[in-house]
Amino acid sequence: MVKIVRFHQFGDADVLQLDELPLAEPGKGEVRLKVDAIGLNRAEIMFRQGAYLEEPDSFPSTLGYEAAGVIEAVGEGVTEFKPGDRVSTIPSFSMKNYGVYGESAIVPVFAVAKYPAKLSPQEGTAIWMQYITAYGALIEYGRVKSGDFVLITAASSSVGSAAIQITKAQGATAIATTRGTSKKQMLLDNGADHVIVTNDEDLPTRVMEITNGQGANIIFAPVAGSFIETLAKAAARGATIFEYGALSMETTPFPLFPALQKGLKVQGYTLFEVAGDPVKLEKAKQYIYDGLESGKLAPIIDRSFPLEQIAEAHRYMESNQQNGKIIVTVT
Amino acid sequence: MVKIVRFHQFGDADVLQLDELPLAEPGKGEVRLKVDAIGLNRAEIMFRQGAYLEEPDSFPSTLGYEAAGVIEAVGEGVTEFKPGDRVSTIPSFSMKNYGVYGESAIVPVFAVAKYPAKLSPQEGTAIWMQYITAYGALIEYGRVKSGDFVLITAASSSVGSAAIQITKAQGATAIATTRGTSKKQMLLDNGADHVIVTNDEDLPTRVMEITNGQGANIIFAPVAGSFIETLAKAAARGATIFEYGALSMETTPFPLFPALQKGLKVQGYTLFEVAGDPVKLEKAKQYIYDGLESGKLAPIIDRSFPLEQIAEAHRYMESNQQNGKIIVTVT
Repeated sequence: MVKIVRFHQFGDADVLQLDELPLAEPGKGEVRLKVDAIGLNRAEIMFRQGAYLEEPDSFPSTLGYEAAGVIEAVGEGVTEFKPGDRVSTIPSFSMKNYGVYGESAIVPVFAVAKYPAKLSPQEGTAIWMQYITAYGALIEYGRVKSGDFVLITAASSSVGSAAIQITKAQGATAIATTRGTSKKQMLLDNGADHVIVTNDEDLPTRVMEITNGQGANIIFAPVAGSFIETLAKAAARGATIFEYGALSMETTPFPLFPALQKGLKVQGYTLFEVAGDPVKLEKAKQYIYDGLESGKLAPIIDRSFPLEQIAEAHRYMESNQQNGKIIVTVT
Repeated sequence: MVKIVRFHQFGDADVLQLDELPLAEPGKGEVRLKVDAIGLNRAEIMFRQGAYLEEPDSFPSTLGYEAAGVIEAVGEGVTEFKPGDRVSTIPSFSMKNYGVYGESAIVPVFAVAKYPAKLSPQEGTAIWMQYITAYGALIEYGRVKSGDFVLITAASSSVGSAAIQITKAQGATAIATTRGTSKKQMLLDNGADHVIVTNDEDLPTRVMEITNGQGANIIFAPVAGSFIETLAKAAARGATIFEYGALSMETTPFPLFPALQKGLKVQGYTLFEVAGDPVKLEKAKQYIYDGLESGKLAPIIDRSFPLEQIAEAHRYMESNQQNGKIIVTVT
């Protein structure tokens, strides 16, 4: 028997429970991992709440996109990996079909990749969601280059820290925003060139100062809602605002007049556009491997919880205190 | 003395009045036209109402972007044109500084271009706004190509008819929408491959039928407001919705969930992005000259009014009965 995290109804973190289940066998095109570490994401909180892009077909439901572990068994037709391989999972599947929270996880082989030997399992499970998400917006679509100004909101999240690192790796200027002063030094330590404390400073004014009146070329923002109007004021002519998440339940306005005046684009984006496209994914993986190798990319681990404290770990993420990735260590 | 249309306050069409003014001399970099015909645009109605992207610095204010005429006088430094040249104006200036409604107009030389000899002045004043607007979105940014499905709303406007013609010239499929049945045949005659009557038919359902479930790749829409939610449902994966005007006073929502699920872009766009960039404008002009020459582009003139009926002409545009360009013939 193995412990698997499931929820039997939508709700707050307390709906997560550890169920003892028989060890499952991988089917065709699948592998089974003995899980060492799990990376937590906002997506799982929203999925648990019934507020995500997709919902479970039925209850109880598993959940979780990211785990690092060792392959224990492979299903029919799997030749890319063998038992004993140290891998982590790429969020290129639907949580309706697979979930990695637990001591053991079945995942499709296309969602499995080796991670660099120098990384621990905690680091290995902290790379794909954050770097593919930031890479897709900033590189695949945004083509960030030297001289660009990239405005990164919610910059202390794991994806935010990845966006700072990718911006710096491209030779561009990273402007991070945070609500209060408590995370300012942390964001500078993470590599941000400038940090705007939005409770104390006017965001568009500060961006215009930093960019000599030009504005930000790329804006990378998970929080939808009316804040987009403020972001549009800070945008340069022809800028793109990437909305990569839906953390606000508010209606998100389209900033029509600044968009017409400055030719702005607002682009909805999730990492599935890259993770679900084999050609784009291969380019992304190579970029991420190269960056991890050179040290320009290095995942920031905030804190680790044991599997038994999965609900506590979710509550901690919801409290927004973290800097970087929240991990659950299984073994 | 010459008759010039001016308004002395914001308001409905009745604020437009014909003022008798002394003939003005062109300044440095300017030319003076003896105006033969004027092309009307929504932008001028909004400018008159005080609801446009910019407002007059003071009253009385002139207005108008498009006129065809004959050059009468050139200012200092103008070598590109000489008196007697038959030209029309490109909306690449600010209405705060220039307006062409009248018997005579001063315009900057960069906003003047010859029009093909085979076109009448009424046709010559009906080409730049509509074709540059449609060209910029569909070609410069959208890169419409054979096999694409282009959804064109407000398709019976002059810009709408230009978008249908450019879509067809590129070998793509033009899907036009109209509210009632009265304009359906007209839009088919204008070249639309499909016409969706939105009062009677469900737009996303019809678009999915026409596109075999794929959706529209490019959506070209002047009317902002909540209609964008419907358009987003009709969009293909990775589609761009161009919002090229602000005809609705409603708040425009950003269609967040479909945008995240399908990677949609909503792009604010005005022709000034092309008209204000000499390199882009030159490419646009060449595309339009070639299209007019081959006959793939041919302006549709709805109706002509005399200058004395300028207020009537504005009211007619506001009534939305037209198919194509509304003209004022001066001489």
